[in-house]
Parts: sequence; structure tokens; C-alpha cells
Amino acid sequence: MKVHNFSAGPCILPPEVLRKASGAVINFDDLNLSLIEISHRSKSFVAVMERAQSLVRELLKVPEGYSILFLQGGASLEFVMVPYNLMKKGGKAAYLDTGTWANKSIKEAKRFGEVDVVASAKDANYSYIPKDYTIPSDANYFHCTSNNTIFGVQMKAFPKTDVSMVCDMSSDIFSKRVDVSDFDLIYAGAQKNMGPAGATLVIVKDEVLGKSGRDIPAYLDYQTHISKDSMFNTPPVFPVYVSMLTLQWLKDNGGVSWIEQVNNKKAELMYNEIDRNPLFKGTAEVEDRSNMNACFLPIEEASQPEFDKMWKEAGISGINGHRSVGGYRASMYNALPLESVRTLVDVMKEFERTKG
Amino acid sequence: MKVHNFSAGPCILPPEVLRKASGAVINFDDLNLSLIEISHRSKSFVAVMERAQSLVRELLKVPEGYSILFLQGGASLEFVMVPYNLMKKGGKAAYLDTGTWANKSIKEAKRFGEVDVVASAKDANYSYIPKDYTIPSDANYFHCTSNNTIFGVQMKAFPKTDVSMVCDMSSDIFSKRVDVSDFDLIYAGAQKNMGPAGATLVIVKDEVLGKSGRDIPAYLDYQTHISKDSMFNTPPVFPVYVSMLTLQWLKDNGGVSWIEQVNNKKAELMYNEIDRNPLFKGTAEVEDRSNMNACFLPIEEASQPEFDKMWKEAGISGINGHRSVGGYRASMYNALPLESVRTLVDVMKEFERTKG
Repeated sequence: MKVHNFSAGPCILPPEVLRKASGAVINFDDLNLSLIEISHRSKSFVAVMERAQSLVRELLKVPEGYSILFLQGGASLEFVMVPYNLMKKGGKAAYLDTGTWANKSIKEAKRFGEVDVVASAKDANYSYIPKDYTIPSDANYFHCTSNNTIFGVQMKAFPKTDVSMVCDMSSDIFSKRVDVSDFDLIYAGAQKNMGPAGATLVIVKDEVLGKSGRDIPAYLDYQTHISKDSMFNTPPVFPVYVSMLTLQWLKDNGGVSWIEQVNNKKAELMYNEIDRNPLFKGTAEVEDRSNMNACFLPIEEASQPEFDKMWKEAGISGINGHRSVGGYRASMYNALPLESVRTLVDVMKEFERTKG
Repeated sequence: MKVHNFSAGPCILPPEVLRKASGAVINFDDLNLSLIEISHRSKSFVAVMERAQSLVRELLKVPEGYSILFLQGGASLEFVMVPYNLMKKGGKAAYLDTGTWANKSIKEAKRFGEVDVVASAKDANYSYIPKDYTIPSDANYFHCTSNNTIFGVQMKAFPKTDVSMVCDMSSDIFSKRVDVSDFDLIYAGAQKNMGPAGATLVIVKDEVLGKSGRDIPAYLDYQTHISKDSMFNTPPVFPVYVSMLTLQWLKDNGGVSWIEQVNNKKAELMYNEIDRNPLFKGTAEVEDRSNMNACFLPIEEASQPEFDKMWKEAGISGINGHRSVGGYRASMYNALPLESVRTLVDVMKEFERTKG
């Protein structure tokens, strides 16, 4: 039976990407060798890395003066690398607290100096994105998290500021257009819209680096990786390859503008049903609702097992909510087809009929 | 044509591992979902992580009191994490310099405090393993690199010392028996004998941690990963899975004692030919020659293109030497069959005949 994969991440990838990736594990680039048993310095793999970088540049219209890196360690290691590279000794940074991941990034930054948390939505279990705050002009940078997978809220706009902007876009990069020139640094774990777990994308403006006055260990210094073109040490070959395939799939289908429309349609369908169906309610503020993760609760908790049975029978997978919110979370990343959202919406309607 | 894959790393993996890995990219654990599009906290993947850890424990007879971690960032990030976690503030560490990788680890350690390089083989282009040196008893730890892939030398024994021993075993772990209880910390990038690039194995004695007196960023603190069972953040799912398959393959075939015998046979065959054949000479000291990487030079450089043509025609791949040594390097990791070494030896003999 076809599975409708609403997993919050690692998440659904396009079927053709999976087919190609599976094939490359046996025979890559007609070498009669597996992708994962050749040198990362071979012509065939260097071409993969270069292609992945150029697809990022093209899809996000990355301006000149920015480097594109594929690293390891996920957003969690970026929480450390960002202050190491950008917070001056004795300087300070501004952070926006929009949930679990923002919180973790704040905790790491505090090891390096003063952190000004400009606003927090913790008071309302992160169900909204704070908007009225001031970014101190003497901050070395302002850090925000564009999408919150756990609470299902997303920044629809970024603040206008002269302070250097840094954004963790792990869960919505490549899902909609973004003006890279507004940011000095963007990072994202691959495992939502880009590829499998194990690679981290970093897009960084070269001129902001080398100014923190800190002695940065080689692996943690973005300049190390820039100077070696993401080949300072053996890169995560398979995750980078599958990321390249996924970005190529995105480009072939129409790029970021195309997927933004598709994602808008999926989110509209989903939220319309959540708002219309008297048996469910959304958890996030309407204006801040995430196009990637729709969180909703059943009105009657007692009827939950019945609904659970229905969606499972329809082949739906991965919609259990995170323990911090409960209920359900439908993650609708790039590769999730509209058809899967229709299936879920149909089950919600059917549930309403059986209960009515 | 069958390829004889002598790549220095990422390197050859067992064909049945590649077949299973390729299959799991399409349908993992009969879920009708790919391994790389499910939650790392799903029952199916948690079982993979636990199995990988227990196979390491079993294959290396890891004693109680040691934790087994699968991290990211390769040995290069371990070069940073080791002093961060083990070198006390104001303390010092002892390092043995046996080549490129040892050198890089020394460079990173120096950022954290005093480093006593107890011996170096740099004077002879790292063609031997230094043996007469004293490890200062007040060092927080002694760090060594068990095998040098570039120069083809390997530590056949480790010094007896009361100082805490740390070893980078990236290129020979699981290739021969080792007494884990001699070490407080062992680390290894996966991409030689364990699996694909993108996972790093760490085996650490719990009681040595938490004593450096340093405020360690979460990702860089081994205790973080121990407390979360290598699931502090999304692990590199595919590299961990393929490592698990490779370790299972090793166990099914007879474990580390078995592969040690196979590796000894392969190395004997290879070095016997290098020593016997008047057209070649080995580059490493005989007693320190690596069972993993055999480096050798042609006696007459002019005849190199002729030899190159012959081995390429025989389906041999990846034996070009590293630029620091030149000539050839036959890497004979666990998954390389004896037959491939025979093929290379036959080509060397044939080359001798045609030149004679």
C-alpha cells in the first residue's frame, strides 16, 4: 500500500531521488563501483559536490560574495559555530526565542558572550512569532529560526535591521523564496527539504568572517571549509549526493517559485479543513502558521483512538504531534504530494461524518 | 568488468552490504518507506542504532564502563573534541607525531594548552614509527594514530604507560584485535573498515569525562551524546545503518580474529611481491609496514606509464600513491578480497616478465 509520509524529519524525499540514490549505492557514474566506496577526491564525486553547490546558488539566487558549504554536525553544531565565528570577544549577539531550537542556539551562544534575547514566545507555548522587538544596534548579529517544526509556527517576514542577520532555516529552506542578500549567514540541516540526515548546508557572506578575534579550531572555522571547498576532510558523501539529486529534482520541476505555490496550496487545503472541521482545532496563531508543519488537536480527546485508526487505514504515517504540543502534526515538506494532503483531509471529513 | 578497488578511503565495502543498503534506500524494514525518509526516533531506526552499538561492543570486546557513540565531523572534529574533553585547564597532553593526521591533531590540541610531542618521524618522511620515547607522567593523556594511510606505517604495539591513552584508529579499527581496556578513548571515521563517510565512532571510558574543568559546547561534549545515546540531534542515519550492516557482515564471517588472519595473508602476499620483485621497492620500514596500506615505488620512473596501463587493464583501481610519497599505494581494507591482491601481484610479476 502507498504510504502518505507526513514525517516531521527526516522526511519524505521524491521517489525518483530515492531510485537514483539506491542505484548509485550499487553502481555510481558507470564506474562499476558504489558511490560510497570511492575517493571523495575522485573526479566523479568532486563533480557531485560542485553540482550541489551550484544548484544551491541557482535555486536561491545566492549573490556573489557568499560561499556555499556542506558540513556535518547538523544545526546543533552550527549553534556553536555561529558565535565562534561571528560573536566578537567581549561582544554580544541578539537572539529571537521562537521555540526549542531557538532555545538551544541561545544556550550555546551564551558560552561565548552576552546574549540579548530580544523576544520570546515561551509564555504561550511558542504558538506565535513575536513581532514587536528591538534589535540592539551594537549586537554583532541577530539570530532567528525561520520555522518551528514542533509548534508549527513560521516567520512570514524577517525584521528590517542594520544588524547582521543569521538564520537557522533547517525546516523551511527551499520551500519558498527568500532574499539571501538580507542575511549574512544561513544554515540548515539537510533532512527536511534538501536530503537525508548527515549534511548541513551553510551559506555565508565571506566578508563577515575572520573578525571575531577568537582562535577557532579548524573544523569549527567556516574559513577552513571555504578555503578547501567543503573538502577540508572527507565530506558526508551519500548525504551530499542525495541533496544534489533533490535540488536537481526541484530545479527540473520549476525551482523555488514553483514549490512555493505547491506548498501554499497544500497548506491552504490543510488549514481550511482544520478551521472548518468542528472536531479539530489548530494550535498556532493563524497569521504565523507554518506551511511546513500544521499542528492541530482533536476537540474530544476521547475520540482520538478512533481517528488514529482511520488515518492509519488510509496509509497515513507520521502525523502524531510532538509531546510538547500533543495531538497531530502534519508535516508537508516539498516532496509531499498534494494527493497526500487530500487523503488526510478526506479522512478528517470522514471522521466528522462518522461522529455526526 | 569486475573492479579491484584498492581505494585509500572512502574504500571498498562488502557487496552484500551494498546490496542491502541499496534496498533500504527504497524500502526499509518492510515499511514501504525509505530508510532516509523516516524519523530517527522511529522504532525501526532506534533498533539500527542500538544494533550498531552492540556490534561494536561485541566485536571489539568493549569492557563495561565504556560508552559507544556514533557522531559526525570525522576524525577532524575529534581532534578538537579530545582536548576539549580531556585536557585540563592549565594541563598538558602528549602526542606522537607519525604523519599528516597526527600532525593535524597536534595543531588542534595546541589551541587548548601545552602539547608535548614525544617523538616525530618527520625527519624520514614518516616512513617509520618512533619507538624510543618517554611519555611524561603528568600528561593528561597520550594521543597516537594507529595507522598512517599516506605513508603506510602502522603501530604494531602500543606503549605501556600509566597515562590515559587516546588513539585515532580511523584507518585500522576492526582490522585486527585490540585490547580496548588499554585505552580511555578510541575514535575512528567510519569510511575505511566500518562504513561510508559521515559517521564517526567513539569508544570512551565514562569515568575520564567531566574532569577537564572546561565549559564545553553541547555538541562537543561526549557526555551530551552519552546521555542521549547518540541521539542528541539527528544522527547521520544512512552512514550509521551501513556501518551496522558492515559490522554484521564482519561478525557473520568470524569477527575480528578472522579478518585479522585474512588481512595478514593479504599483506604477506603483497609485501612478499614488493620485496621480491626487482622492479619495485617498498617505502616504509619493514617492521612498521601497514597491513592496510602498502606503499611502493617503481625502480625506474620511466617505466611507470607501462605498469599503469597493465594494472588498469586488469581492472585495478585506486592504487596511485599519495602526492607526499608518490608511486603506488595498495590499500587492503577488510572488504578487499584476497583475489584482488592476487590480481595486483600477478600484474607486477607480468610487468617483470615483459621488462626482463
